[in-house]
Amino acid sequence: MTQAAASADIVLHNAFVVTMDGALTVLRDGAIAVAGNRIAAVGPSADVLSAFPGAAQTLNLAGRILLPGFVNTHVHTSQQLARGIADDVDLMTWLHGRIWPYESHMTEEDSYASTLLCGIELIRSGVTCFAEAGGQYVSEMARAVELLGLRACLTKSTMDCGDGLPPNWSSCSTGDCIQHIAEIPYENQLVMRTKKIDHGTVTYLEKIDFLRSNLLAAHSVWLNESEISHFSNAGVKVSHCPASAMRMLGFAPIREMLDSGVCVSLGTDGAPSNNRMSIVDEMYLASLINKGREAYISGTTDPTVLPSETVLTMATINGAKAVLWDNEIGSLEVGKKADLIVVNPFKWSMVPLHDSIANIVYCMRSENIESVMCNGQWIMKDQKIMNVNEEEVISSAVKRATALLARAGINLPERMNYL
Amino acid sequence: MTQAAASADIVLHNAFVVTMDGALTVLRDGAIAVAGNRIAAVGPSADVLSAFPGAAQTLNLAGRILLPGFVNTHVHTSQQLARGIADDVDLMTWLHGRIWPYESHMTEEDSYASTLLCGIELIRSGVTCFAEAGGQYVSEMARAVELLGLRACLTKSTMDCGDGLPPNWSSCSTGDCIQHIAEIPYENQLVMRTKKIDHGTVTYLEKIDFLRSNLLAAHSVWLNESEISHFSNAGVKVSHCPASAMRMLGFAPIREMLDSGVCVSLGTDGAPSNNRMSIVDEMYLASLINKGREAYISGTTDPTVLPSETVLTMATINGAKAVLWDNEIGSLEVGKKADLIVVNPFKWSMVPLHDSIANIVYCMRSENIESVMCNGQWIMKDQKIMNVNEEEVISSAVKRATALLARAGINLPERMNYL
Repeated sequence: MTQAAASADIVLHNAFVVTMDGALTVLRDGAIAVAGNRIAAVGPSADVLSAFPGAAQTLNLAGRILLPGFVNTHVHTSQQLARGIADDVDLMTWLHGRIWPYESHMTEEDSYASTLLCGIELIRSGVTCFAEAGGQYVSEMARAVELLGLRACLTKSTMDCGDGLPPNWSSCSTGDCIQHIAEIPYENQLVMRTKKIDHGTVTYLEKIDFLRSNLLAAHSVWLNESEISHFSNAGVKVSHCPASAMRMLGFAPIREMLDSGVCVSLGTDGAPSNNRMSIVDEMYLASLINKGREAYISGTTDPTVLPSETVLTMATINGAKAVLWDNEIGSLEVGKKADLIVVNPFKWSMVPLHDSIANIVYCMRSENIESVMCNGQWIMKDQKIMNVNEEEVISSAVKRATALLARAGINLPERMNYL
Repeated sequence: MTQAAASADIVLHNAFVVTMDGALTVLRDGAIAVAGNRIAAVGPSADVLSAFPGAAQTLNLAGRILLPGFVNTHVHTSQQLARGIADDVDLMTWLHGRIWPYESHMTEEDSYASTLLCGIELIRSGVTCFAEAGGQYVSEMARAVELLGLRACLTKSTMDCGDGLPPNWSSCSTGDCIQHIAEIPYENQLVMRTKKIDHGTVTYLEKIDFLRSNLLAAHSVWLNESEISHFSNAGVKVSHCPASAMRMLGFAPIREMLDSGVCVSLGTDGAPSNNRMSIVDEMYLASLINKGREAYISGTTDPTVLPSETVLTMATINGAKAVLWDNEIGSLEVGKKADLIVVNPFKWSMVPLHDSIANIVYCMRSENIESVMCNGQWIMKDQKIMNVNEEEVISSAVKRATALLARAGINLPERMNYL
């Protein structure tokens, strides 16, 4: 057992602790002590219990799984009210007919309501930290994130060119491209033509010495072999968003990036691109899609590609590296922030537990996530969201979403014959 | 409103009724009357309520969604106890090292316990009817299915050749190939070599006049254009299993089959191939994967491929056609069997509801499925499984699964460092 503090606020014991530390240590009957907002001890239950006899609270987890909180490295919190407005349409309709009108008609209160609703879905899928990929009214996002008790990197969406940009955005500048790299083949073609280089965005960014270890590149679908090397050499981090990529972008060379030592993490993208905002489902998808992708690379699928332990690494410690906080979060280790989740694996969806690590990746659903702690505080306990009234958030978000669509003039065609 | 009977046992009203009838009728404020095991009326709430004033029970669904029960056309109920025993391994290890030893060491009681556990997952994901793809001890499957209250086509798994078949199976005969068609490229190569034909399994089955409208072909991944025509001309039904295909088989030409008029339905396959046994997740996967697959066919993904209404058709009426029961189930129409599900779309996972049909396919999770009726009886009500004690089923299944693996000598390698 390792130990930092002398007293603890809470001891969680009798758990299956998946630490995701450097040695991938798993404690079959393990415990964690939390003091303030940090992990004070990790070790066998008996050791931790005897080291902290005066803990304010002692909780017997009866064999449940303890994991580090997941890190979702690509979220558009402002787009939560737009779930369902752009399904089954081509990319130009998605952007010009739906998302831009939606985002350009948002108010500050809409952004706040959208982030609260999105945050509930993030927490329910075990996320304790996320990277905003760009949206509207950052101060309102921050207000919602703080209330929910989540940890996040927030940012505004900016574009300095693009046909059909909403008028009120035309004064914005600097490149959205620093977050959205090599998404679609057209992007590479455009860059090759205008910048006179031999492949795409990544080749150009390498040429201008833009690739650094503090760059988080989303999607990264259309990279060739030498561009993967550029990423690897520069220490660029990647956010792989399997659902969104399947819908609109293509198959990212994830196995090749991992083989080259690139730090690949997982993201959900925004609600109108996915539309589940669940890192739990993205783990499942990442494993399946990258096994299937091999059918096109080698002629047959390869079920051994992206094994469960790799996928779990992507959703935890790699996510922490991607947001440059791996010294603070991403694993259950003494001294790190107490960001953790409690999973009940004894329900119909995860039994039997012959291979708990595989079951976390392949079978776990948000239903199995019982409690979520961020920064030493429970932000969901026994499936109850702690810091907001969930029903009120939903009710307010739904009203705002309807009004916003009307204001933006977005009318969706009917898919069936409504009476 | 259409009406068949004079009295009703239950009237469900104030619902968003997605009938999946031939005209794809949706009733925004609709009702369904059930008499005995059949649907007695479908129509606007006011009409149905006034037609059945003396219904034994009247239930206000407060805007919830009513759908036909889903049909899962490829399930291995006997494999539920094997969830997690064969993840991230190649196909030969999967078969010879894990699944065959597991299945050949099953007892009749194991098959019963496995089917009960599998049935709970099927019900919780909105399935009212399924097609067993082959397993052990059909009479025990039947006993479990009857107790749960599900509708099913059951079958035994048989193989008449194959290296390394367990000794106690060597006396079996006739082809498993009638259920598993064109799964892997090797299968096509073998058939071409041994049967002297120019493509694969489907070309051979066409040659021997085996393709008929009562054939349900699972997976169907490695078909060429003329083989798709053979399927279409003969009226062969297909069970598309997206998760399982991604892991071990490849990308089935689903768009091309649908364009050729082939009836494509959805299946989960067995627990060690997926590992979620949820048709809800398969709908999500089918849509995403087939959009993504276009990246390899045309160079870019096509988000318009397999729109939500098509995917919902696959999971309902196409499933009914696949098991040759579309005169009885698969849509909410007067005279059909009362197989239906109640979905609560007002939770965090499905709001806002700008496009309810899309949200059913892209956002719905098993958590949103509140109640399931099969043959006029609630088999799940307000998320409580009605006909078995769920905790006892889980407890017994877990014990049997552990004992079975020990008996079969299956030892799984550890993925992390266990202390």
